[in-house]
Amino acid sequence: MENVLFVLNIVGIVAFAISGAMKGMKYSLDILGVVVLGILTALGGGMVRDVLLNQVPMALLHENDLGYAIVASVMTYFFGKRIQNVTSWVRYFDALGLAVFTVVGAEKGIQASLGILGVVIMGTSTGVVGGMLRDILVSEIPSVLKEEIYASFCIVGSMMYYFLFRFGVSHLVTLLVVVCFIFVGRVLAIRYDWHLPRRSL
Amino acid sequence: MENVLFVLNIVGIVAFAISGAMKGMKYSLDILGVVVLGILTALGGGMVRDVLLNQVPMALLHENDLGYAIVASVMTYFFGKRIQNVTSWVRYFDALGLAVFTVVGAEKGIQASLGILGVVIMGTSTGVVGGMLRDILVSEIPSVLKEEIYASFCIVGSMMYYFLFRFGVSHLVTLLVVVCFIFVGRVLAIRYDWHLPRRSL
Amino acid sequence: MENVLFVLNIVGIVAFAISGAMKGMKYSLDILGVVVLGILTALGGGMVRDVLLNQVPMALLHENDLGYAIVASVMTYFFGKRIQNVTSWVRYFDALGLAVFTVVGAEKGIQASLGILGVVIMGTSTGVVGGMLRDILVSEIPSVLKEEIYASFCIVGSMMYYFLFRFGVSHLVTLLVVVCFIFVGRVLAIRYDWHLPRRSL
Repeated sequence: MENVLFVLNIVGIVAFAISGAMKGMKYSLDILGVVVLGILTALGGGMVRDVLLNQVPMALLHENDLGYAIVASVMTYFFGKRIQNVTSWVRYFDALGLAVFTVVGAEKGIQASLGILGVVIMGTSTGVVGGMLRDILVSEIPSVLKEEIYASFCIVGSMMYYFLFRFGVSHLVTLLVVVCFIFVGRVLAIRYDWHLPRRSL
Repeated sequence: MENVLFVLNIVGIVAFAISGAMKGMKYSLDILGVVVLGILTALGGGMVRDVLLNQVPMALLHENDLGYAIVASVMTYFFGKRIQNVTSWVRYFDALGLAVFTVVGAEKGIQASLGILGVVIMGTSTGVVGGMLRDILVSEIPSVLKEEIYASFCIVGSMMYYFLFRFGVSHLVTLLVVVCFIFVGRVLAIRYDWHLPRRSL
Repeated sequence: MENVLFVLNIVGIVAFAISGAMKGMKYSLDILGVVVLGILTALGGGMVRDVLLNQVPMALLHENDLGYAIVASVMTYFFGKRIQNVTSWVRYFDALGLAVFTVVGAEKGIQASLGILGVVIMGTSTGVVGGMLRDILVSEIPSVLKEEIYASFCIVGSMMYYFLFRFGVSHLVTLLVVVCFIFVGRVLAIRYDWHLPRRSL
């Protein structure tokens, strides 16, 4: 299971980095800007989580993740147009990344003895803050606050993780259930164009 | 006195969360975006302060504050139009929150043995950074940098707190004086439309 | 050499604060907004670096730097138009600041036993994050991501610092080589209008 998580984590980093790099190219950033957006989208959520938990970010201590994000961003810069043709694939990777990042964040929150709201914030931040930083850097309102529903799956998934842990369900089952829930939710939301309600003033 | 601070802190969280949630609704964010803006406006200042002081944010360890912010934001989402009719009330709560948050931040700065500039930054950040995050997330230039004078009261209030503490004035008197100063200043600034000077290039 | 670094650090803070304050005036911020932008431009990079390394920011513990940033920002507010006439001078100070900040950041990364990518991120963040915060606060896309090449010199300079350190080159020589490299690179980039490549989607 550790190995599966390990691989899924890399898949998630690559998918998130591609999404950040593509956004950078959309705004005509230079190659460095594209790579910075890729890195922050892929690793920014985990970095903010670790800073909040008063730890030096994993990404600085174990540099492999930084390497994957940089390589994925540079590849996107050079082959961006071709990647556009496979975005339906990237979308699945992205959903996997979201699921894994959330689970990793929720687990860290539990290890830090946080309560349920704290665990939800850790899990959800790890999943969505990278994308928020990406949008803020190009002066967009983060799409996750406006039209995207996927943070809801991170929230519910983190709660599930918290309760399954509390009820003593085995680690493996907990992981599988939550990762599947977030992945399937995210894919269905895109497929059927689900949104959260809005009300204006 | 502890009890008064305790209650004022909740009042401040609720008022700040309402202001964040209303801003989110103004920009047609979905319900999750409204709640995220409410949470960050109410608790973002304290979180940044704690991170700068190398501590795990209070909001993650003692979850009640998160709960108040979430409830206030959700209520704003559902009853936002009616809240608009009582904004003059919200404004007073907001001024109270600003005063209490600043005092809590300045106190933390003093406990961390910071000098006067450090104490001012801790007090002022706790009071105003939440509102800055709110504005940044909707791609506005933070109003506190542009047209609002209230950070000035946080700055002067933090200095007063520092000197009263240094001169050995009792904790209770210090608290009362500084909270009243910031509260009254903020209310008068709105009443008489005070602004800081500007110069353009 | 310590003394030279000490002086160059102040030069850098002043130059960065001026650049932040001028940007604030361009957007008609009030005097407080101008000072906040000055402080964050000058000290934001170092603060983010220290937070990532799980340390209380130097700027809060040793307040002199805060003082320089505040004075430089206030002076810019009052004499901004005259400073515009000497921007070619400010530009050289700015290049010196970039070089010194990067070296200080890379050194901190090495002290924290980071690997080469971590050292590059520490050095480069210290040099460029202040300017990014400045741009984000006025809702601009950070120029360093879009059209400015100078972060590249920070990246290469941080790598040089890492390798010279690893190869046991004396501290003094390492400092001189890297500071000169970044300074000269930055000045030539402005002189000959160098840019990084861009590709749009």
